[in-house]
Amino acid sequence: MAREVGDYPVVRRGDDFDPRDIRYIFAWKPKPDAFDGLTNLKAILSLGAGVDALLKHPNLPGDVPIVRFVDDDLSQKMSDYVAAHVTMHHRRYSRFHADQQARRWTQYYPPAASTSTVGIMGMGVLGQDAARRLLPLGFTLRSWSRTPKSIPGVEGFTGADEFDAFLSGTDILVNLLPLTPGTEGILNADTFAKLRRTLDGGPVIINAARGGHQREADIVAALTDGTLGAASLDVFEVEPLPVDSPLWGIENCYITPHIAAISNEETGVIYFANVLKDHEAGKPLINVVDRARGY
Amino acid sequence: MAREVGDYPVVRRGDDFDPRDIRYIFAWKPKPDAFDGLTNLKAILSLGAGVDALLKHPNLPGDVPIVRFVDDDLSQKMSDYVAAHVTMHHRRYSRFHADQQARRWTQYYPPAASTSTVGIMGMGVLGQDAARRLLPLGFTLRSWSRTPKSIPGVEGFTGADEFDAFLSGTDILVNLLPLTPGTEGILNADTFAKLRRTLDGGPVIINAARGGHQREADIVAALTDGTLGAASLDVFEVEPLPVDSPLWGIENCYITPHIAAISNEETGVIYFANVLKDHEAGKPLINVVDRARGY
Ligand SMILES: NC(=O)c1ccc[n+]([C@@H]2O[C@H](COP(=O)([O-])OP(=O)(O)OC[C@H]3O[C@@H](n4cnc5c(N)ncnc54)[C@H](OP(=O)(O)O)[C@@H]3O)[C@@H](O)[C@H]2O)c1
Ligand SMILES: NC(=O)c1ccc[n+]([C@@H]2O[C@H](COP(=O)([O-])OP(=O)(O)OC[C@H]3O[C@@H](n4cnc5c(N)ncnc54)[C@H](OP(=O)(O)O)[C@@H]3O)[C@@H](O)[C@H]2O)c1
Repeated sequence: MAREVGDYPVVRRGDDFDPRDIRYIFAWKPKPDAFDGLTNLKAILSLGAGVDALLKHPNLPGDVPIVRFVDDDLSQKMSDYVAAHVTMHHRRYSRFHADQQARRWTQYYPPAASTSTVGIMGMGVLGQDAARRLLPLGFTLRSWSRTPKSIPGVEGFTGADEFDAFLSGTDILVNLLPLTPGTEGILNADTFAKLRRTLDGGPVIINAARGGHQREADIVAALTDGTLGAASLDVFEVEPLPVDSPLWGIENCYITPHIAAISNEETGVIYFANVLKDHEAGKPLINVVDRARGY
Repeated sequence: MAREVGDYPVVRRGDDFDPRDIRYIFAWKPKPDAFDGLTNLKAILSLGAGVDALLKHPNLPGDVPIVRFVDDDLSQKMSDYVAAHVTMHHRRYSRFHADQQARRWTQYYPPAASTSTVGIMGMGVLGQDAARRLLPLGFTLRSWSRTPKSIPGVEGFTGADEFDAFLSGTDILVNLLPLTPGTEGILNADTFAKLRRTLDGGPVIINAARGGHQREADIVAALTDGTLGAASLDVFEVEPLPVDSPLWGIENCYITPHIAAISNEETGVIYFANVLKDHEAGKPLINVVDRARGY
């Protein structure tokens, strides 16, 4: 770290320093006292892509800009996760797996990718990267975001007014929204009931954003009564997912332990060193969080 | 069918016709007497992409050109299958599935797609389509074919001499070869032992070509002793796969019942109607099988 930031001294909590000298803080799950005494902060550098937890910090300085982590390696890994789960569900993995367990040879032919419409909620850094990689695979794509987007090959839907229309043509729903008061609990029974039912086996949800987006009781019910055909969940209301959660035992629920995409320390250090140097050289900060929006 | 081929009368086996009038035959798993009396054939139209079974027909006329089926819809479906299985293995599905069954939360982070080298055996119509779709996902690609290929983003290996070099850098081996005397049994213990071992869990094979390419006893042994981490098999030495095959019961073996890509009747009729009209108009036949090569 020290090498990359050049001439600027780097200290850690516990080192001997005057908190008033601190200009920038690297924050990753900061402790309650993390910001104490830092009266001269110029920016808070968030090592996570999502800042929902940071924004809930009880002692977060109110007027200091927050820069979040945006990184090609992180986007690539998230798209790896999304592509794997979208293609697996499109190819009806659950069905063939059940047949294999029963040693049953049933020749069912999955139709071409274009017959599945993948609906991406959240068309920011991660949503756009996922769309760019899913397009050449042949899927039909649509997106939902707060402000309008025009991305070639992706039908855009905007805001609360167009949410139902977005859902009504979606077979595979991918969540890449930030967690904010406006998106909390969005993966609920109401939403599931509005999805299109053309995918054999039923519609699918894939949540790689935040556990707070999903109502797990609703997911369990929907997977059980057939409202949903399958779910891939990388995040959970409580993490680690409690051992007695019914989700673990549902065949068509594909659980991964919040590993879709992790921030890469090496690229992270380079990114933030550049943010810091540019800012010291008088350039504006990039990827600044809008606290009013919540992301 | 009759509509698409325009003015040419279409008959079926069992209809009342003089076999000497038949100029073209549509062949899909032809019976032993299928070609009897057809002394004026101008072409045999194979409704399958692979002609290995047709070439073994005991009464196949020796001097009539065989046109095989080549179709975008078929290629798309095959690439759907390949992309689903490549991405699933790259994302270590087997590992997370085992963790889920044990209700175990182990945060293992799959590296970016570029760290997995996908080696495609057979760089014809299907291999090239698969490569074209895997590239934007970020995988490192290499191919193996009989004659040299130069495809941007794909490192090409050619012929028997370069087979070992090809394998030694391959983590995920995808077989899209035609079944010929030169490729039969190519997925065997020797081949598996030469694969690169950088993919966590061990190298992976994906066979979507023909059951005759694989030695199933070797696959069972390799999956059991860890030489292979996983296998996706769409085809088998004997189909349907016998109920007592040990493959059914191996966790890391992903079985589908020869459904990767089926010929689409609608597009097939249009394709062959065009082949026939063009040929009658004096144009050369396309996609003609080279019987000496066997594909
Ligand atoms: N599971 C993991 O391993 C993992 C890893 C990294 C990130 N994540 C999660 O992924 C999230 C997305 O990351 P990102 O970098 O893509 O964020 P981003 O660039 O800020 O994009 C957010 C997108 O969501 C849209 N959005 C926000 N609020 C909305 C609302 N109320 N209604 C409709 N659309 C709304 C935004 O619309 P506009 O474009 O109109 O602003 C934008 O398109 C992060 O917040 C984080 O929680 C998870
Ligand atoms: N599972 C299913 O549902 C399904 C569906 C359709 C097809 N298939 C199978 O897929 C196979 C491939 O189809 P395709 O249309 O892609 O065939 P293709 O266009 O004829 O391509 C065959 C490729 O294999 C290479 N090859 C042949 N013999 C070789 C050898 N001895 N050593 C190295 N490379 C060799 C060829 O090399 P050159 O380029 O140098 O000639 C060519 O690149 C079919 O034959 C069929 O068996 C399976």
